[in-house]
Amino acid sequence: MEIVEYRPRPDQLVYTFGGAEPVMRIKPGTALKLWSEDAFNNALTSVEDLSSEKVDLNFVNPQTGPFYVEGAEPGDTLALHIVELTPARSYGASATIPFFGGLTSTDRTAFLQDPLPDTTWIYHVDSTRSTVGFQARFGDFEVALPLEPMLGTVGVAPPGGEVRSSLVPERFGGNMDAPEVKAGTTVYLGVNQSGALFSIGDGHYRQGEGEACGTAVEGAMHSTILVELIKGGAPAWPRLESDGEWMAVGSSRPMEDSWRIGQVEMVRWFGELFGLHQMDAYQLLTQTAQAPIANAVDANYSVVVKARKSLFPKAAAYDGLHADLRRRSAELL
Amino acid sequence: MEIVEYRPRPDQLVYTFGGAEPVMRIKPGTALKLWSEDAFNNALTSVEDLSSEKVDLNFVNPQTGPFYVEGAEPGDTLALHIVELTPARSYGASATIPFFGGLTSTDRTAFLQDPLPDTTWIYHVDSTRSTVGFQARFGDFEVALPLEPMLGTVGVAPPGGEVRSSLVPERFGGNMDAPEVKAGTTVYLGVNQSGALFSIGDGHYRQGEGEACGTAVEGAMHSTILVELIKGGAPAWPRLESDGEWMAVGSSRPMEDSWRIGQVEMVRWFGELFGLHQMDAYQLLTQTAQAPIANAVDANYSVVVKARKSLFPKAAAYDGLHADLRRRSAELL
Amino acid sequence: MEIVEYRPRPDQLVYTFGGAEPVMRIKPGTALKLWSEDAFNNALTSVEDLSSEKVDLNFVNPQTGPFYVEGAEPGDTLALHIVELTPARSYGASATIPFFGGLTSTDRTAFLQDPLPDTTWIYHVDSTRSTVGFQARFGDFEVALPLEPMLGTVGVAPPGGEVRSSLVPERFGGNMDAPEVKAGTTVYLGVNQSGALFSIGDGHYRQGEGEACGTAVEGAMHSTILVELIKGGAPAWPRLESDGEWMAVGSSRPMEDSWRIGQVEMVRWFGELFGLHQMDAYQLLTQTAQAPIANAVDANYSVVVKARKSLFPKAAAYDGLHADLRRRSAELL
Amino acid sequence: MEIVEYRPRPDQLVYTFGGAEPVMRIKPGTALKLWSEDAFNNALTSVEDLSSEKVDLNFVNPQTGPFYVEGAEPGDTLALHIVELTPARSYGASATIPFFGGLTSTDRTAFLQDPLPDTTWIYHVDSTRSTVGFQARFGDFEVALPLEPMLGTVGVAPPGGEVRSSLVPERFGGNMDAPEVKAGTTVYLGVNQSGALFSIGDGHYRQGEGEACGTAVEGAMHSTILVELIKGGAPAWPRLESDGEWMAVGSSRPMEDSWRIGQVEMVRWFGELFGLHQMDAYQLLTQTAQAPIANAVDANYSVVVKARKSLFPKAAAYDGLHADLRRRSAELL
Repeated sequence: MEIVEYRPRPDQLVYTFGGAEPVMRIKPGTALKLWSEDAFNNALTSVEDLSSEKVDLNFVNPQTGPFYVEGAEPGDTLALHIVELTPARSYGASATIPFFGGLTSTDRTAFLQDPLPDTTWIYHVDSTRSTVGFQARFGDFEVALPLEPMLGTVGVAPPGGEVRSSLVPERFGGNMDAPEVKAGTTVYLGVNQSGALFSIGDGHYRQGEGEACGTAVEGAMHSTILVELIKGGAPAWPRLESDGEWMAVGSSRPMEDSWRIGQVEMVRWFGELFGLHQMDAYQLLTQTAQAPIANAVDANYSVVVKARKSLFPKAAAYDGLHADLRRRSAELL
Repeated sequence: MEIVEYRPRPDQLVYTFGGAEPVMRIKPGTALKLWSEDAFNNALTSVEDLSSEKVDLNFVNPQTGPFYVEGAEPGDTLALHIVELTPARSYGASATIPFFGGLTSTDRTAFLQDPLPDTTWIYHVDSTRSTVGFQARFGDFEVALPLEPMLGTVGVAPPGGEVRSSLVPERFGGNMDAPEVKAGTTVYLGVNQSGALFSIGDGHYRQGEGEACGTAVEGAMHSTILVELIKGGAPAWPRLESDGEWMAVGSSRPMEDSWRIGQVEMVRWFGELFGLHQMDAYQLLTQTAQAPIANAVDANYSVVVKARKSLFPKAAAYDGLHADLRRRSAELL
Repeated sequence: MEIVEYRPRPDQLVYTFGGAEPVMRIKPGTALKLWSEDAFNNALTSVEDLSSEKVDLNFVNPQTGPFYVEGAEPGDTLALHIVELTPARSYGASATIPFFGGLTSTDRTAFLQDPLPDTTWIYHVDSTRSTVGFQARFGDFEVALPLEPMLGTVGVAPPGGEVRSSLVPERFGGNMDAPEVKAGTTVYLGVNQSGALFSIGDGHYRQGEGEACGTAVEGAMHSTILVELIKGGAPAWPRLESDGEWMAVGSSRPMEDSWRIGQVEMVRWFGELFGLHQMDAYQLLTQTAQAPIANAVDANYSVVVKARKSLFPKAAAYDGLHADLRRRSAELL
Repeated sequence: MEIVEYRPRPDQLVYTFGGAEPVMRIKPGTALKLWSEDAFNNALTSVEDLSSEKVDLNFVNPQTGPFYVEGAEPGDTLALHIVELTPARSYGASATIPFFGGLTSTDRTAFLQDPLPDTTWIYHVDSTRSTVGFQARFGDFEVALPLEPMLGTVGVAPPGGEVRSSLVPERFGGNMDAPEVKAGTTVYLGVNQSGALFSIGDGHYRQGEGEACGTAVEGAMHSTILVELIKGGAPAWPRLESDGEWMAVGSSRPMEDSWRIGQVEMVRWFGELFGLHQMDAYQLLTQTAQAPIANAVDANYSVVVKARKSLFPKAAAYDGLHADLRRRSAELL
């Protein structure tokens, strides 16, 4: 297996999906060992650092990439298997950026009220106990929370020549902020441009569903990722697979549309997996799906629709690629 | 403990929250053993029964109740602890009612397209294996799914003299269609009218999150419920508590508003539980909450926002009432 | 023509559609001369009167009615022709009620921000110049605005035994807050309960589209209304007709659903008026409709979809009833 | 006055805002005489031409431009005064593209229903009578409708290096599909990139509000446009000015957010025009604004919030630039 390491210099960071030259070309089958900067470009290192002073929302979620995958053409399916995610710093940061987040008016849900206080929280990583520490800013409450690393962004170049901010989750993946994008998960993305041009970033040391305040425990990350290419078969929207679940992610507004997208994508997938008529897939998923909100705060809202494999007959998506990637990933750990 | 059994005659079924005379008065501390009719009034007993012919959407979700709880006044908190739920029939039914459900246009999301085929599925209960059987209608796929009984509706009379259809989830509870409303869960509802006037119904033998097609595996149900009253302290929106979780349910449109409601209610609850400032509660829940969609199909959409107790310091809501109800419920099983 | 005058005593005011005993029975063809209280129950008479202290949102929009229309049965169409609207007081009031309105978070769009300042504006009516006077509260700007009286609420009892707050616009009419509900307009409402049980209220001395802050220039009103009954033909959603326009009002959430409802209702109406296939009606209205937002602030948002008669061949809705009512109304002025 | 004519060759058409090299550099004060292709690239010239066969949604709304305006820098305000719009062909086309439009499910509002019939309508321009002719496709109804030319798209390059499809309306303008963008209107757009890089296209021979089916009477257009630059003062969202109205356009999802954006932008503008406190501007606009829906069908929904100048004291936006442009435009007619 070819193993490629890459750590971008600050001037190599990009802030969009699409629109950037690839940093390298890789072959399907390559294992990437990547470093990614945190969502704030490491601007928040103490509770004295205020996001309104140090963070420019046009330059957040710096991406590591994009990578050109040889042979990838529009209509193909890029498979990114996340082998391992490890914090690359001893602290993570979160903040309530003025007029950004889920429980505040924004530039879209535009009201006349004053913003919430611009507040920063710093979480210290305890790698022995595998925790990050929450400390109240308006009191003395403390609690250590389990470290659960995930990637907020993973995406390819969009279709139609569009270039989208790395704050955006969409059909091409992007800033889905889904806790399910973690070690052990394979992400399937439809390819829109030659080479796919995927990138990753926005590491979270942990995050609740919805990412209520708009920022997780943001931290630089070491990511090991296995890259594969499936010719053809591009899903309309991102699909995820873990040992236990098939999943699809819808990202749009209003949130019911995100759910509808994810649910319809799962109906299509169940048609492929089990040869089910769409009405039967609709019915079966009605009684079995899970539907957590991934983010309620980004340019689009993301909902993950999941089916637990244990409930259904055995079925292999993409000729069993996920299981194969799991086997291969064992060599890397 | 006083134990009261009640099975409504067909003419005693009600189809609203509010607007109906109580079927009986009960004291706080009473255990109720209730029977409830299925959402379709048992109109769908074979796949030949079509919902467009046999179901009138003005008369679905028949309620068992309402019950007048002595001493309950506006501003108080009704606690309903679900001790046990058991299917009362050997089959459940589900259907894709024309222009009703999550992946079809409706009277609200009004489009010009033709409806999806009016289709009925019948699920047989295997009580030995604790399963319900799915059988494809457009193919020969079959699978047995775990029985996971829950109540689609539990609610009190609304405020302001309103009377709402039993299809509606709202501030007063109602048709939340949340899988979390199952045995072992305590439901806290703010009281709006003297006596609270709560009712239950819409038993589901199982349901996925979102209840995509609009109908779960609908079935008549035996419910054992412990009723308690907390003077004062009415939550703004329904709260749930299980051994493992604190939860709040928001129900509105669009779906992001349902999430916002649930998330804000949890911020308030965390303020009560831990004395946290709202900004700290907002931050802490951002990193820890779960946020499954309960229904994406009803008059309002419902989202459950949850916090797993194991992540936080020990705290007792409502003076430990849930734990006390769990102890008392053991006597009933 | 039978002319009936009615001015409710304070204890006769009702705050719901449905759920109240009729104040009188009237025959189709009756002219009603009604007095209605303002939305705030006249609680705001000076800028010192704060809505947070004087207004209970469970008791706003007091209704004059309900009236039982003899012969009206479910499925029939109630026609209410507004002959004349005249301010019944020399002042109107508006206010930014905390957490109520279009540019503030609310109990639904629930955020953590502080409310906007609770502020009251009093508008003096100059009946000679037919104006109401705006006076800035945070500066010395003044401007006289044209008096344009309209009714914020007009509705019948809802279907399915529901009782809804007079703050709600819905399929049954209600708090649509549409400036088009003014003298010269006929309102067509589907009848849901015997007698229709309609009421009116929430007079506005004027209002912009959207009713941005949630309250118009609220004022007590003298209304002259001609009541007619069409057997059968109930529209699914409220329709309006003026000399120049056919209109339909959709009320739901999110706002695109309100628009969809209104647009589909107009497609249906154009099918009736011109025998058009729904695809042709869809196309023709695409190029001709107007679509102002009526309210963006109520329990449901309302959108009016309009077609200007002058663009189309002559057509008579409901056998020319509107023109007939216009003729009859001339006798009353 | 410098007058520049430009008609793009087919290979010079662009399909994005941002991401394309400017076709020329122009000085502020220039008058442009432009030709633009229709939204379908002239693919629909008979009712036999089906959009599903001839139209690729990645290549619609071809743009004429972008133009580099000398001296324009981020934070400046580009003023585009529309002097004249004239149909450049004798026919326009409209179509119900499968899964595109306002009364059908789409890739976002994703349902399982079949699409509406793919249908094309051709409108013949009668330049003598200034009409376009509607002919029913499913019957023999005909009607001539007034020609009311407008531009569906006018926009600058987006901020943050984004490149957006010419189907998108946003903060940078774009596919707002607002009937108000017609001869006599000045469009003010905040500049995001050096040179502004604006383009126009998507001419409509007429359109109803909402553009219900997703396509207006689409036609090639001759446009005369006066270009001016205001240093600084960039509005957050597009503003429009006509002799009779000040306007702002919000574009987002759900539609209430589009309205909120437009309304808040008008509050800001009224602060600038009259020195009003935001609470007074909020109140005054509540009683006076108009709020038509421009489109309910695009990637974002657009709402125009308007204030009629005749209601208010005289005030000059941007030092009276609109009036000045009107005077200058007289020389060109």
